[in-house]
Amino acid sequence: MTKQYHPLTEQEAIAYARTIPDLFAPQAELDCREIGDGNLNLVFHITDRSSGRSIIMKQALPYAKVVGESWPLTLDRARIESEALQLEGKLCPNLVPRVYRYEPELALTVMEDLSDHIIMRRGLIERRVYPLFAGHIGHFLARTLFLTSDLGMNQQEKKLQQKRFVNPELCKITEDLIFADPYYDAPTNSFDEAIRDEVEAIWSDSDLHLEVARLRHGFLTNAQALLHGDLHTGSIFITEQSTKVIDPEFAYYGPMGFDIGAVIANLLLNYAGQEGWSPDAESRAQYRAWLLQTVRGVWETFEREFRALWNEQLVDRMSATPGFQDIYVEQVLRDTIGYAGCKMVRRVIGLAHVADIDRIDDAAAKERAQRLALAIGKALIKHHRSAASIDDVTRIVERETAAR
Amino acid sequence: MTKQYHPLTEQEAIAYARTIPDLFAPQAELDCREIGDGNLNLVFHITDRSSGRSIIMKQALPYAKVVGESWPLTLDRARIESEALQLEGKLCPNLVPRVYRYEPELALTVMEDLSDHIIMRRGLIERRVYPLFAGHIGHFLARTLFLTSDLGMNQQEKKLQQKRFVNPELCKITEDLIFADPYYDAPTNSFDEAIRDEVEAIWSDSDLHLEVARLRHGFLTNAQALLHGDLHTGSIFITEQSTKVIDPEFAYYGPMGFDIGAVIANLLLNYAGQEGWSPDAESRAQYRAWLLQTVRGVWETFEREFRALWNEQLVDRMSATPGFQDIYVEQVLRDTIGYAGCKMVRRVIGLAHVADIDRIDDAAAKERAQRLALAIGKALIKHHRSAASIDDVTRIVERETAAR
Repeated sequence: MTKQYHPLTEQEAIAYARTIPDLFAPQAELDCREIGDGNLNLVFHITDRSSGRSIIMKQALPYAKVVGESWPLTLDRARIESEALQLEGKLCPNLVPRVYRYEPELALTVMEDLSDHIIMRRGLIERRVYPLFAGHIGHFLARTLFLTSDLGMNQQEKKLQQKRFVNPELCKITEDLIFADPYYDAPTNSFDEAIRDEVEAIWSDSDLHLEVARLRHGFLTNAQALLHGDLHTGSIFITEQSTKVIDPEFAYYGPMGFDIGAVIANLLLNYAGQEGWSPDAESRAQYRAWLLQTVRGVWETFEREFRALWNEQLVDRMSATPGFQDIYVEQVLRDTIGYAGCKMVRRVIGLAHVADIDRIDDAAAKERAQRLALAIGKALIKHHRSAASIDDVTRIVERETAAR
Repeated sequence: MTKQYHPLTEQEAIAYARTIPDLFAPQAELDCREIGDGNLNLVFHITDRSSGRSIIMKQALPYAKVVGESWPLTLDRARIESEALQLEGKLCPNLVPRVYRYEPELALTVMEDLSDHIIMRRGLIERRVYPLFAGHIGHFLARTLFLTSDLGMNQQEKKLQQKRFVNPELCKITEDLIFADPYYDAPTNSFDEAIRDEVEAIWSDSDLHLEVARLRHGFLTNAQALLHGDLHTGSIFITEQSTKVIDPEFAYYGPMGFDIGAVIANLLLNYAGQEGWSPDAESRAQYRAWLLQTVRGVWETFEREFRALWNEQLVDRMSATPGFQDIYVEQVLRDTIGYAGCKMVRRVIGLAHVADIDRIDDAAAKERAQRLALAIGKALIKHHRSAASIDDVTRIVERETAAR
């Protein structure tokens, strides 16, 4: 098989897997199935019939397809993804799939198979409860963000690391779809006619636009830490016991709050979606209470572990000034709340939606869910700069829920 | 002559100059003199005896010497310097020396000779007046900062440009000497025993440290625009009619206010130095009034032209939201004032001082100048986040001057 880039066939994927030492026995009979959605990547699932051992091979395609549109996309994202996975794996060994091999020519990453996990978004739609999730993801966020920032790593090495994760094409997707298109009548937008009144109100809300402009500017300039860059519940594999963060192809140096906000936004999108998924008011209230408790738990774990890392592993003398840690953490909280709001709004009126809301069959319930998600998102964006505690988020969510 | 890196002799410099087409006639008799201080670079001044035509060849040395200390320093800074000069030259053709050639192997830049100009710091010490300076440098700052930022250039190209200007070693010098060492008893510090009381007060002033920590953090993370990175009056060649910015080897993507603040700080350091240079109170007041008027003129020209560029050449849709320009400019002003303060403090108690104060012979006058510079610097740092206008700077300067 030539190593010049070309999309692999299932047979070529098997042949490639056999070249990796210690993965499969030489005589192993391997089955291969391509299980990706074909929008951005090929995903090969390769299984050894006798041992049952399996791996995943993910190959980047030279284009992106979103909702029928297709545009060229750099293969360098495969390098960024595999390097980010390996770095995250060093910092949080149990919270990302292990990487067995990265093949630059083929834009191919060979990694641990997580088929015993499910995509968290599906789990939430099925109204499952993950008692360990907040602790796991809070730990992941604290360690990956602190230890790649100027607080936790050598500041000259950080600059070189930042250079390796310059990621213009993937950042552009975020800049357009999250921080611009939802706020005017962009051709990429996609929303139900039922909520056009609310969408048009957003297009003309210049107080909201001012806050989004600030958050967009932070995304463009604030090189605080190496982000996952796309940390929604579709980028998380989960079981009751285990959490695995996948797909960091949007990784770049940006504001810490963008990653934390992504997690919180996606929990709250499911919260809104419970208009359609919960069988009755009581179970809706119950599941929502768990979601809100999880939002709080994500932030509280992040904050506790981030502060502990600061107290134990700070490399920056000036940042040890009494009071600076509080100022810093408060700013991360504010960013988190603002970015969470942006990520909610765009999932209702922008190009890419979430199944938590879009797959609701009942039109009235779906509309209620969309309006609730927009109301929470807008309120988070408008409030973000004056937030003082994670309580502000639960208060806003409860207020907007009660108001409907 | 081999092109493998080695420090050139004057004869080799002449031989190299002859290889550049259209610079000198083939039969020209060339004289060469090495005129650098030997701390960071060799600087060859090459003249054609008959035509009088001359050029400068600047070659980076693989080390830095500051006050007797010597440490290795990357030759890549020659590339950064020549690329920054060429970029600045495109944006402000009359405000930087023209670059004729860059030779990467030799870390060598061949450029316009500016011997008819003098170093601005010398001009200020001689109490000369430059009526066009504020307009020139304000124009330079507005264009170089706006047009390299996410406001004025394609945001994906900006990321790639930022990657080319990752500059860890030179940034480290700034991070240490400006944003850390002056605030504790660091071995690099250097100050007169006469002001030890004031220095120790700075070391224990944790309110001051908090503000410096914020500004340091901005320097480390806020990739707003391509900075010159070392824009003091020793990096400016000047005549009454002409201003030329040189030596951008510290260029990197950072906060706009750092460059503007550098210019203002160095005008104010000379203001403080007038304790020693002005022959009498009246002429001191007069020259200081010109310096303050120039500080104001630098900011006002910057602001006027920056806003004009914004109104005419903005590439960022969300930033066009009414009100965002005011928010942005106010933040740049605040950063400018904070960074100006940091740059004043470090020039009195840190490793590298300025001749405007250090060369004052009269010990009492020198001490007054040092105390005044520190008082202004501290006040600017502490006030920076609440500043609303450039008037705040003149008010602080006049208050601290009157208080002594």
